[in-house]
Amino acid sequence: MPTYQAPIEDTLFVLNDLLGFDRHNNLPGFADASPDVVEAILGEAGRIASEVLQPLNRVGDREGCHRAADGSVTTPPGFKDAYRTFREGGWGSLPFDPAYGGQGLPHTLSTAVSEFMSSANMAFAMYPGLTAGAIAAISAHGSDAQKQAYLPNMIEGSWTGTMNLTEPHCGTDLGLLRTKAVPQPDGSYAISGQKIFISAGEHDLSDNIVHLVLARIEGAPEGVKGISLFIVPKFILDADGKPGARNGVSCGALEEKMGIHGNSTCVMNYDAATGYLIGEANKGLRAMFTMMNEARLGVGVQGLAISEVAYQNAVTYARERIQGRSLAGAKAPDKKADPIIVHPDIRRMLMTIRAINEAGRALILWTALKGDLSHRAEAESERQAADDWMGLMTPVIKGVLTDKGFDNAVMAQQVYGGHGYIGEWGMEQFVRDARIAQIYEGANGIQALDLVGRKLGLNGGRAVQAFFAEVGQFCEENRGDEKLAPLTKGLKIGLNDLQQATMWLMQNAMAKPDNAGAASTDYMHLFGLVALGYMWGRMAKIAQDKIAAGANGQAEFLEKKLVTARFYMDRIMPESAAHLARISTGADSMMAMEADAF
Amino acid sequence: MPTYQAPIEDTLFVLNDLLGFDRHNNLPGFADASPDVVEAILGEAGRIASEVLQPLNRVGDREGCHRAADGSVTTPPGFKDAYRTFREGGWGSLPFDPAYGGQGLPHTLSTAVSEFMSSANMAFAMYPGLTAGAIAAISAHGSDAQKQAYLPNMIEGSWTGTMNLTEPHCGTDLGLLRTKAVPQPDGSYAISGQKIFISAGEHDLSDNIVHLVLARIEGAPEGVKGISLFIVPKFILDADGKPGARNGVSCGALEEKMGIHGNSTCVMNYDAATGYLIGEANKGLRAMFTMMNEARLGVGVQGLAISEVAYQNAVTYARERIQGRSLAGAKAPDKKADPIIVHPDIRRMLMTIRAINEAGRALILWTALKGDLSHRAEAESERQAADDWMGLMTPVIKGVLTDKGFDNAVMAQQVYGGHGYIGEWGMEQFVRDARIAQIYEGANGIQALDLVGRKLGLNGGRAVQAFFAEVGQFCEENRGDEKLAPLTKGLKIGLNDLQQATMWLMQNAMAKPDNAGAASTDYMHLFGLVALGYMWGRMAKIAQDKIAAGANGQAEFLEKKLVTARFYMDRIMPESAAHLARISTGADSMMAMEADAF
Repeated sequence: MPTYQAPIEDTLFVLNDLLGFDRHNNLPGFADASPDVVEAILGEAGRIASEVLQPLNRVGDREGCHRAADGSVTTPPGFKDAYRTFREGGWGSLPFDPAYGGQGLPHTLSTAVSEFMSSANMAFAMYPGLTAGAIAAISAHGSDAQKQAYLPNMIEGSWTGTMNLTEPHCGTDLGLLRTKAVPQPDGSYAISGQKIFISAGEHDLSDNIVHLVLARIEGAPEGVKGISLFIVPKFILDADGKPGARNGVSCGALEEKMGIHGNSTCVMNYDAATGYLIGEANKGLRAMFTMMNEARLGVGVQGLAISEVAYQNAVTYARERIQGRSLAGAKAPDKKADPIIVHPDIRRMLMTIRAINEAGRALILWTALKGDLSHRAEAESERQAADDWMGLMTPVIKGVLTDKGFDNAVMAQQVYGGHGYIGEWGMEQFVRDARIAQIYEGANGIQALDLVGRKLGLNGGRAVQAFFAEVGQFCEENRGDEKLAPLTKGLKIGLNDLQQATMWLMQNAMAKPDNAGAASTDYMHLFGLVALGYMWGRMAKIAQDKIAAGANGQAEFLEKKLVTARFYMDRIMPESAAHLARISTGADSMMAMEADAF
Repeated sequence: MPTYQAPIEDTLFVLNDLLGFDRHNNLPGFADASPDVVEAILGEAGRIASEVLQPLNRVGDREGCHRAADGSVTTPPGFKDAYRTFREGGWGSLPFDPAYGGQGLPHTLSTAVSEFMSSANMAFAMYPGLTAGAIAAISAHGSDAQKQAYLPNMIEGSWTGTMNLTEPHCGTDLGLLRTKAVPQPDGSYAISGQKIFISAGEHDLSDNIVHLVLARIEGAPEGVKGISLFIVPKFILDADGKPGARNGVSCGALEEKMGIHGNSTCVMNYDAATGYLIGEANKGLRAMFTMMNEARLGVGVQGLAISEVAYQNAVTYARERIQGRSLAGAKAPDKKADPIIVHPDIRRMLMTIRAINEAGRALILWTALKGDLSHRAEAESERQAADDWMGLMTPVIKGVLTDKGFDNAVMAQQVYGGHGYIGEWGMEQFVRDARIAQIYEGANGIQALDLVGRKLGLNGGRAVQAFFAEVGQFCEENRGDEKLAPLTKGLKIGLNDLQQATMWLMQNAMAKPDNAGAASTDYMHLFGLVALGYMWGRMAKIAQDKIAAGANGQAEFLEKKLVTARFYMDRIMPESAAHLARISTGADSMMAMEADAF
């Protein structure tokens, strides 16, 4: 059975040393997040993750959710109690507005916490995760009355939330959606239609479920310009604001999935359900994207989270399993064989996962901090720069860290040999769970198109130019540092490849848009390589500086950072040239065959 | 629900045009495999695959196998009838010795057939697949009496076979195995111990199960030099050679696996079971490797097979699912959206899978032909050269085509978006089934070590030098061909990278063996890139020559070969430089951390 220990030392290194969290304590919420408080919160979150959520991960997978004939859904054994513990601990309220009962702490901190929870039990963590997205959308677009009505209970956790976008014929292309909203005399709408793949759509964890539903008001324009967003509560609120009459929304079926069995993925049927318009009519997509961006970063966190727990268990197995002898001579001569961690190919897998995880954690928290700054920084210029980074990096984090997260789970499974294929060892569940993160909240191909087709050119390329300048400057500043030179050299090569690829796109994608589509996935991964490499450069510099200053009791931890940074440049960064080469060949051979010829 | 059509035209292209199958009709077995016969066999095999086996693929996954309290195991509904059809069609006997009831046809042909069967139902095809391995071992190492006793019924299919290597504490490192063999007065042995992960270990498809079991004769040397191979039939043969008394071997449990649920993967308990030594005492490993090499090629076939069926279904979905518009302008303006096959990123996935599959099929059948020639060619030099190729390419095919097969199944699943994650669409089963092929019959890291540590240096590097010369000569011969030049140029770059990597290994791995281990997986994949690229070069040349000669009604098929070859060089071959770069960094950063520091 797998185990999990939250990577608290590493998270604190990122928050304190890399991000200089306490430098921002002039900003709202940050003042409350002093180093002591942060450490205490992370420690307690880690404890809940290890002791409460992780033990339910396998039972959640095996037992799954069950739908009764009346459409009610029960979660796996233990989930209800665990959710109560989670809720009572206030874990769902960390980053939200104190005016509605939130703790007002930085999103950066709640992002770190959500990594731990997702490592321990991804299917479980999705319930509060979706609620958080719904809270964000209502906070940003709801009326004061809507906020008063829904936010306090959602933030407290006694009500949960969902996102309802997908329909059987319509996923990526929301312009095709058919769910109808008919205006009612009282100002509400009657919502009718079918939604599929609705995570946490129906379950027994909360007293009410607040569905956010995309639908088309009768007579609205076709396509994406005629879509509105509605609040559709499972129980309509009564005069006291308490869950009252059952609304006309129900779970028609549970999807039978590859993984995340502990989360209820529902077909939701809306049969003239009472809905309340949120934000402006026909502007629903914009409101929904508030949720989507939160959610996409959250999905990137899931990629990291599964990769981390898979890594930890693979390390344990590699230390305990004895098989064969080191090529460099027996390492455990007293035993019949050496532990398999002596074998370079096992190391290759472990170090690859480790190098992605630590840089991934840094990139996620770095970006989450930008998210906080985009709302809370004092200077408009700082808010804008932070928002630029956030927008640019969201598809990169979602696409790259979930692709890598899955690859890493597969690698960690491979360390187990045949045992990795057997359910009781738990590794195959990580692979099945990690797989969804590449698909939902916009399949990774869509993330790549978002990056290449939208984010690159936004505001005349302001965000990407700022990123290139920042990474280039870091390389330049540290070029003379003998010890860092191998790292900055590798990073600079990657950056040059990325800049060349960007130039190629500018020169070749305008006249022939298929060249952009053909390049998109490689470009996204190339971008990710450089962004992660930049994190390694920064972390290595800090580690080196701290060692020079006496290491403060962290010598071993800091030396490992330097080794892992070097491994990243040796073994992972070289992929950049292959991406550039592929991008530069354009779309010709990719698009030459007729559709019927496949 | 997925469907499957055997790729008969492509298989015939490989057999007839690439391999010139009928040029070998002077050799035993090949005379019977005239073009007409081959086409008829492939056609009928494709029909059985599509109509009999494929419809049972999902039920096999869902229902799985069941073990009763008495240790008996039932296969999924329909498997028994399907196996009867398979057996009565003589599909298990194609390549075996007519002296024992086989059809004596080339292994090349049965390899093509096994691809079809594995595409349709991998879990099912494993039952006869393991039997074929056991037949090979008994044929090569059994006494005449043993052959007489076991082969006819195994070849006919009324008895099946297994391989018993793995024990709970011992997988890759067979030197650790503990199963004991105690000599009995009658010349037999009493076998006691536990084996795990035994595919097809117990089931209801056959009248007897012939287990080939590795065990240690009492008093034998420690390690791999004290291992012997035994035949342990489920039912001991009576005086008439018929299944008689139940032997002391039983299924203690079924493993709960990630996939291939239709195949019974057993914990086998041997309790003083009667076993018969096969081959020499303490030489069991050599005998087992006869099976392993067959099996490894067969596992490579599974990688291709799943990739092919996943591809076919992804193409169908990409043609039927409408979502979004082509970046180059609407392609289906009469519909609300275009089919997703218009999107370059969908094409990227489909073309990648296609390019690997067609070259993979060519490489497998090319290598299977070498296997036939290594036994049947007239000249000793030809037999040796064929055996060299076979030995060199076995780990490459096993390791690379199963890694790519899994990646491709994941990509094909990705084409489906959210539907790919749902059981009823069948794509997630392909991913789960494909995963085992990277693990069993020697995890792919072991294949890489076999290539780098054993096969490269064998006979002074004779095999690898011959391969380099052959590929180099092909590039040289076609350098002047204007149309082929882009292909041969790409291939030549890959070959140069591979030769440089080989040189690096020669210079750096002797003094420091960890450098070989650290390079091994990248080296294997680099080797695979070049081998597959060589197949594309050859196939493109043939296609071009045939088009120049009038195409003989195959113009569209041949043009597609040229497009796909170009795609391979544009998009897949560029990976070679990254492999070389990684290999050249050596083991330092990979091995720097202490085992306890992870």
